Amino acid sequence: MNQNNYVIIMAGGIGTRFWPFSRISNPKQFHDVLGTGRTLLQQTADRFEHVCPPENVYVVTSEDYVNLVLEQLPFLSKSQVLAEPIRRNTAPCVAYASYKIAKQNPEANIVVAPADHIILKEKAFESKILIALDAAAKSDVLVTLGISPTRPDTGYGYIQYTKEEGEVKRVQSFREKPNLALAEEFLASGEYVWNAGIFIWTAKSIRNAFLKHSPRLHEIFEAGNESYYSEHEAHFVHNAYQSCESISIDYAIMEKSDNVYVVLGDIGWSDLGTWKSLYEVSDKDEHGNVVDGNTMLYEVKDSIIKTPQGKLVVIKGLENFIVAEYDNVLMICPKDQEQKVKDFVADAGEKDSCFI
Amino acid sequence: MNQNNYVIIMAGGIGTRFWPFSRISNPKQFHDVLGTGRTLLQQTADRFEHVCPPENVYVVTSEDYVNLVLEQLPFLSKSQVLAEPIRRNTAPCVAYASYKIAKQNPEANIVVAPADHIILKEKAFESKILIALDAAAKSDVLVTLGISPTRPDTGYGYIQYTKEEGEVKRVQSFREKPNLALAEEFLASGEYVWNAGIFIWTAKSIRNAFLKHSPRLHEIFEAGNESYYSEHEAHFVHNAYQSCESISIDYAIMEKSDNVYVVLGDIGWSDLGTWKSLYEVSDKDEHGNVVDGNTMLYEVKDSIIKTPQGKLVVIKGLENFIVAEYDNVLMICPKDQEQKVKDFVADAGEKDSCFI
Repeated sequence: MNQNNYVIIMAGGIGTRFWPFSRISNPKQFHDVLGTGRTLLQQTADRFEHVCPPENVYVVTSEDYVNLVLEQLPFLSKSQVLAEPIRRNTAPCVAYASYKIAKQNPEANIVVAPADHIILKEKAFESKILIALDAAAKSDVLVTLGISPTRPDTGYGYIQYTKEEGEVKRVQSFREKPNLALAEEFLASGEYVWNAGIFIWTAKSIRNAFLKHSPRLHEIFEAGNESYYSEHEAHFVHNAYQSCESISIDYAIMEKSDNVYVVLGDIGWSDLGTWKSLYEVSDKDEHGNVVDGNTMLYEVKDSIIKTPQGKLVVIKGLENFIVAEYDNVLMICPKDQEQKVKDFVADAGEKDSCFI
Repeated sequence: MNQNNYVIIMAGGIGTRFWPFSRISNPKQFHDVLGTGRTLLQQTADRFEHVCPPENVYVVTSEDYVNLVLEQLPFLSKSQVLAEPIRRNTAPCVAYASYKIAKQNPEANIVVAPADHIILKEKAFESKILIALDAAAKSDVLVTLGISPTRPDTGYGYIQYTKEEGEVKRVQSFREKPNLALAEEFLASGEYVWNAGIFIWTAKSIRNAFLKHSPRLHEIFEAGNESYYSEHEAHFVHNAYQSCESISIDYAIMEKSDNVYVVLGDIGWSDLGTWKSLYEVSDKDEHGNVVDGNTMLYEVKDSIIKTPQGKLVVIKGLENFIVAEYDNVLMICPKDQEQKVKDFVADAGEKDSCFI
């Protein structure tokens, strides 16, 4: 194992599309969503067991979730959990963690991974990550993982790449959430893959990229070198985040860079962004139901039932529905109308913040 | 107020058709089903406030519910709560209470009323009861309340009566739960009313009726005269119930008697036997929903939502459904398939008795 390998796990999301299971006080990365005995955050960390030493795992999260992270990943020291005082999207998150790591190890090779994705093919994932790390270590490039699209999903970012030999292909362009017609074109062309939001680069390359494309963020987090790993770090970060714009790493860096490469991977990936995506990656019963709960189902088909274990849930005559209960919220909604969930969250928040 | 007036409230039912709200450990008579602040049992007792003195209210219930009764009706002394050791339908229940009351007051006029019915028109009810009590006190008759049928319900008993002047009409026959064709005939004929299961008679008349039509029950409970209101009562009742057949007061007495009269009443009655009957007597929102809970409803119509107050319930796209949660059971079922509830209860019981 290369002792220069690091992973930055981004675990600050609030995942409202997965409400009511994902809640501001306890978002989905801290849940055992698939019922495997490990939360999504734990599964994400497990995935890098053979890629980098445990002391090189860094988790960036909201101040509110620091204790949850330390509980779920007890091998982490406090300096490995980076607390964001406010949410500023992924670019500041990546910059903070990368510059902090660079201070400790300027030769660091870094994987950036969201805490709330599902990757079913762990071995394939590991091998793709090692290929990407190898490419990143050899030259000044930014590497991303690309997933072959299986449908014209309008919720994902797409990456157009150059058809060429080898595992590491040059990226031509990024296309954020296209409309359906465009997504269908992308799918038909065979030149596009989904952007999994998993990035691989060296501390040096990402520093170069920030310097060139996002000099303000570079300046802010470079100034932290005096504070990282010290008692002043929290104070520094608190001030630094006030100055940061809220911007994604894709917009701030990837789309502006001309040294971006993609490693294609059939890794059983899902961003688990929605109930539908949970449905897709989960085992189904003989009636096409994904069931996690103590249920009695009569004429129930193609539905997701996810309810507390202690509760008996008796359902008759529902097709293509989501029945989800978590904490003090029960949601019953047609599966194909789950885009309404964000409205539910907004309306619920007006009732009482305890519901969101 | 006539000090000889008594009421026997039958509160031993387990109401499984109203599951999961009605539970063996806490059946529906002990619930504030309509959300008025009073349970069905309390409402039943309230209904007799101007009919008989509080010390003349007797409640017959299962041993398991004695404390619930005393909690909900704190004006009762222990001797006014009659504990049945086993369920034996209504005839033994009526005999036990009637013979006990007769020992205290041989001149007693008695109303027998189920604890789990709804009567919306309290004033009309009271006046009909007083008419029936008056008739019962004057001669050796058994009086029942009849409800003008509004639909050919196959779940009720029907009473055929003689069309004659006056409030108290002679009963020609009782017809238990007819099939639909027969129920439609009954409705069309105008000669039938629903049997509300509310009876009015004197202690003497019901004793005569038991003596004549159910001599075994007469013998069993007449023998209790040495024990009623004494420390031996519980022991006596325990043995007596072992000897009782399980039989309704309708079969044991009413259908065999030729001195039965009916007082017709438009009293806003529902036996609240089923979810549908709750739907019928409850206030509805502008979309035809009966809602008792903290809900956010989107495109929900003609449904019953009855869920715990502390829980936010978000539902989209259900029509004609029941969504009911109580204790540790959630049921979602089309409103017109509520006859399946008894299957649910049976299946739930096989999982764990805590669910029934």
